Amino acid sequence: MRPASAVEDKVIAPPRPGPSAAMTDALPPPRALAFDVFGTVVDWHGGIRDAAAAVAARHGLAGDWAAFANDWRAGYAPAMDRVRRGELPWTRIDELHRMILEDIAARHGLAGLPEAERAELNRAWHRLPPWPDTLPGLRRLKRRYTLTTLSNGNFSLLTEMARHAGLPWDCIVSAELFGHYKPDPECYRGCARLLDLAPAELMLVAAHPSDLRAARAAGLRTAYVRRPLEQGPGTVLPAFEPEEFELVADDFGDLADRLAGAGD
Amino acid sequence: MRPASAVEDKVIAPPRPGPSAAMTDALPPPRALAFDVFGTVVDWHGGIRDAAAAVAARHGLAGDWAAFANDWRAGYAPAMDRVRRGELPWTRIDELHRMILEDIAARHGLAGLPEAERAELNRAWHRLPPWPDTLPGLRRLKRRYTLTTLSNGNFSLLTEMARHAGLPWDCIVSAELFGHYKPDPECYRGCARLLDLAPAELMLVAAHPSDLRAARAAGLRTAYVRRPLEQGPGTVLPAFEPEEFELVADDFGDLADRLAGAGD
Repeated sequence: MRPASAVEDKVIAPPRPGPSAAMTDALPPPRALAFDVFGTVVDWHGGIRDAAAAVAARHGLAGDWAAFANDWRAGYAPAMDRVRRGELPWTRIDELHRMILEDIAARHGLAGLPEAERAELNRAWHRLPPWPDTLPGLRRLKRRYTLTTLSNGNFSLLTEMARHAGLPWDCIVSAELFGHYKPDPECYRGCARLLDLAPAELMLVAAHPSDLRAARAAGLRTAYVRRPLEQGPGTVLPAFEPEEFELVADDFGDLADRLAGAGD
Repeated sequence: MRPASAVEDKVIAPPRPGPSAAMTDALPPPRALAFDVFGTVVDWHGGIRDAAAAVAARHGLAGDWAAFANDWRAGYAPAMDRVRRGELPWTRIDELHRMILEDIAARHGLAGLPEAERAELNRAWHRLPPWPDTLPGLRRLKRRYTLTTLSNGNFSLLTEMARHAGLPWDCIVSAELFGHYKPDPECYRGCARLLDLAPAELMLVAAHPSDLRAARAAGLRTAYVRRPLEQGPGTVLPAFEPEEFELVADDFGDLADRLAGAGD
């Protein structure tokens, strides 16, 4: 970790021509970047697919573990929506993941999996692998910006994931701190408030237009990052309008390039 | 940052004879360490003394900046107690520090200090220097334990301090997250809950017996670290009973030694 003070007086590079010019001409750079995590920073599809395959191999079970991963993830938004609508009290993602696993285990041939293996498989969400560009990109961005998570993952999940993957966050911010799941506005405003920033000084980085739209509505800046393998090889990227988000990047290295003066 | 997974299977060293043996015989090692920050991790006395001296020099002001630092800090506990008793609504340490500064500025010859300089001096609390043993000690401890702050400092203060000083926290936990200042039990229990740990799996590391006593009452493990220069050369270390805390250490290197199996 490099102290921020060492670079605070560094000259900010002039805006590059290209997609970032409009932003850097119109607005000062953000002071902090908040990252969506599942799909944006880490590869949940590959991580869950591989973890399930490993568990299944130990028990001699056959299955389509890529489909299993997508099925598990598909239960995520509806489960959070039950919390957001008040049908469930505040429930951590660890518990929501476990409830969804119980729902889908039988149809993926995992009905006989022992309790200890189910609990361990549920913790695969704590050990998801970063995308190949994640670590070098975050290290570049960290030189200039405060980096935080802003994820629906629970605080301990995000902390354990960071230790496991070496993610160089300056702090962990989770929906759990606000008792509201994204896209509730409390999450975006709460993150800015904790960092003592105005919403317009904080940029959300996410692979999901719905998350970015809610952040924008709460006053945050927005950067969309393409993750064409989020659901595996058959991923269909979500549609959005050309001017919806301030930045559109192919990966975290491209994001650092587009955020003029990101430190190198 | 080194991923935790790389060392998870490392053999735990047998307990050393000496002060740590009783702990390691009786109890499993904690899973995470929560650090008090002001005085325990960073040298507020030296940092504030030097920041005030620098501001004063720019304005040709003379004063006893060591005494000024101790005077500013002396207002801290009473200000938090006003919040704890409900006389003030929830107020961040940044604002409490500023209120105390306004109270004491005149008697230290700082009455004429311009607003911008006062605001900048108040931010010296974000840039306090670590003790010499802090960074090497934390790096050793991080190999085996999840490391968090558990401080009355506000979240943004602690995040900025970590960036400035290179403190390798896995996450930032502040009293601000609970709306309660230490020693209220909500802070200690809340920190364990966020980390998804039982209180007995979390150890508070602090230079202040009052903080450790409240942590112990909330079910946490306790490690006292001597900071004989906390208030400068005239520091009188607080008294405590020999068996009050599980560990007593001279610095963070000594703490890593006493926590058997801390990774090296």
